[in-house]
Formats: sequence, C-alpha cells, structure tokens
Amino acid sequence: MSAYGSLGSSRLDRLVRQLTRLPGIGTKSATRIALHLLHNDASESRELAECIVEMKQKVRSCKRCGAICEEEECGICRDERRRNGQLCVVEQPTDIFSLERAAVYRGRYHVLGGLLSPLDGVEPDHLRLAELVGRVKEEAISEVVLALSASVEGEATALYAARSLQGVSVRITRLATGIPVGGHLEFVDDVTLERAFSGRQNVD
Amino acid sequence: MSAYGSLGSSRLDRLVRQLTRLPGIGTKSATRIALHLLHNDASESRELAECIVEMKQKVRSCKRCGAICEEEECGICRDERRRNGQLCVVEQPTDIFSLERAAVYRGRYHVLGGLLSPLDGVEPDHLRLAELVGRVKEEAISEVVLALSASVEGEATALYAARSLQGVSVRITRLATGIPVGGHLEFVDDVTLERAFSGRQNVD
Repeated sequence: MSAYGSLGSSRLDRLVRQLTRLPGIGTKSATRIALHLLHNDASESRELAECIVEMKQKVRSCKRCGAICEEEECGICRDERRRNGQLCVVEQPTDIFSLERAAVYRGRYHVLGGLLSPLDGVEPDHLRLAELVGRVKEEAISEVVLALSASVEGEATALYAARSLQGVSVRITRLATGIPVGGHLEFVDDVTLERAFSGRQNVD
Repeated sequence: MSAYGSLGSSRLDRLVRQLTRLPGIGTKSATRIALHLLHNDASESRELAECIVEMKQKVRSCKRCGAICEEEECGICRDERRRNGQLCVVEQPTDIFSLERAAVYRGRYHVLGGLLSPLDGVEPDHLRLAELVGRVKEEAISEVVLALSASVEGEATALYAARSLQGVSVRITRLATGIPVGGHLEFVDDVTLERAFSGRQNVD
C-alpha cells in the first residue's frame, strides 16, 4: 500500500508495491516515485522500463574474473597494459570500482561473489574459489592479494582461500588492518588497535 | 554516473542515470537499486518494468473531478452514498487521500491540477477552473470548500477561484488557518498567530 493507502488505481498501487521491494525505498518514496512517473512524460517512464529490461538482458559476469560487463570478458581482463602475474581477490564486482578509484593497483582481479557465511547458507561451493585456484595455476600468478572485508566472514574467507591455494607456489598477501587515515586513537576499537600494534611498521 | 563512476556496462550506467531522474533518488541510491536489479531474479525486474508501462497506459484522470482512476469516473464520483451539493476543491489528486484519511468530509471533490504561480508559468488556463464553474452550475452545488494550501500560491488561487464563481449563487468557504493541534504558541510564526487571532472562536 502507498503512503496514502490505495491511490484509487490498482495499477498504481501495484507499481508502489513493486517499488517498495527495491533497497532503500519505503512506502513514502515509492508513492512519490509512482506519482512522479504518472504525471511526467510518457517517454521518461518508457525509457526507464526499457533500461531495466535491456540491462537485465545484456549485462553479465566476466567469464574470467566475474566483474560486471557486457562482453565475454571485462575491460580490465582485456586491457593489455594491466600487470599480469598479480591477482587481487575481492568479494563483489563493486569492490573493483573502489580499488580502481583509489588507483593503487595495476594487476588483474578475481571476484569471489560473496563471503563464507555458513549461517546464511553461503558455503565454499557458492564462491568462485575453484576458478581462483585454476587461474593462479594457468595464468602463472606470483601474488594473490586478498582484498576482503576485515569482518569475521572476510577473515574466514581469506583463510579458506589461502588454504585452497596450499601446495601452489604463490605469495598470498592481504590488505593491512589498522587505524584508518584521519582516525583518532580515542575512537578506535580494541581489536583494531591490537592489529595496528602487531602490524606496526618501521619509520624510515 | 553511478556512485562508483562507470559500472563497466553502458546499460547499467544508463539505468543508473534514468533512476537518478526520479524524485529523492541520488547517485548512491540509484547505484544500489541498479545493482539490486542486476543481481536479483529476472522476474522482479520484468514485473517492475511491466508495472511502469501498464500504469502509464491505464491510469488516467477522472473525467468529472480530476482524481486518479482507471475508469471514466473515479470511485468517489460514482459513489451514491456521497453527499451531493458540496464540492471540495483541492490542488492535486493526493490531497483527496489526505482528506479521506482524516474522514471529515462526505461530499464530492474537484481537483484543480495545480496552484496559480505566474513565475512558474502556471496561469488560470492551466487549472481546471472552468470545469469547476461548470460543475457548480450543473450539479446544483450549494457549498464550495476551498481546501488549498495556506501558501501565497494557495491563497491567490483561492481568491481567483472565488472570483470565478462570482454571480453564481453558492456559499464559498475555505479551511481555517490557525495553530496546528499540538503546536506550541512559542513556535508559531507571526502570520499564523495573527490569523489564529482574527479567526478566534467562541468557547461554548
């Protein structure tokens, strides 16, 4: 139901219901959007509907790394200027954008598609771990950087991935844990502080 | 552009751009919604697209009052239990829902479709004023309640509507202006206070 109850049209009510299924959209926003679409140009709503359908048809996962793309392989996998031999493992495709924005890494990526979480039913088989091991062997990877969240699930997944690569001659690293830039010691939690301490670095 | 810049697919980027045209949706929400649609069931995005198209095709304005409906006339206009002879004039269809929710009025409605605002290019011809005068005469209306916003535009429109009905034998009223229920005198602005004073009522 909309923010006003029924809007006097079952089609409009149905659209409101569909919109509330989207993340971050409550009944008030859904009602506002539905009424906006009702009152605005027919071309705008047609374009939106087309965009949704076309996106769903054309967008897929890169066959190699699992990133979002429209071709067989994504732009990064096809980019010859990227450094070979280095593989950065991330949870989801959007993590690639975060790392690319920071422009700190020039190698290749591998998307796991999630983090291990037995309680939520995410088992090793659901992640692209076998593909990771395969690529490390085939692409003669010398370093795997595990760029996963510093959460319990992230750490468990990092450990599992490292164990999956046992016996393969490859350097396995992970992102440093510590105090975020701009973070005050006062507000940093104990676990992070402990990690920052044990991972302390020499001042040159 | 999405919250991450390009999402690696022109179709996905285009959907994000379309979504940011909706009210209350910024790039972050648009990105989140687009990725949600990408990862979820194809049936969900298909239904959403269908809902948008179908709503736009089927929903129209009530021929008589201007409310949202799917038939020639809306439910309230067709409802024989509603009181005839009383017409409540509102700015937009959603105002009807607000009044219906409060359940204070049992007569008929008339939607103007906006408020006079010369600076925004809204002239009397753009509003359903001629229709209002026509209905007052044809439907033998004895009272027109102007339920418009207490804004400058609302007051100008109310005055204009009242003038349009000059010469027609009908009682014209408007909603009372005053302190909202639960409002503290301390926080009420001067204009409202003045109106509340001049409109003061006897205590029975």
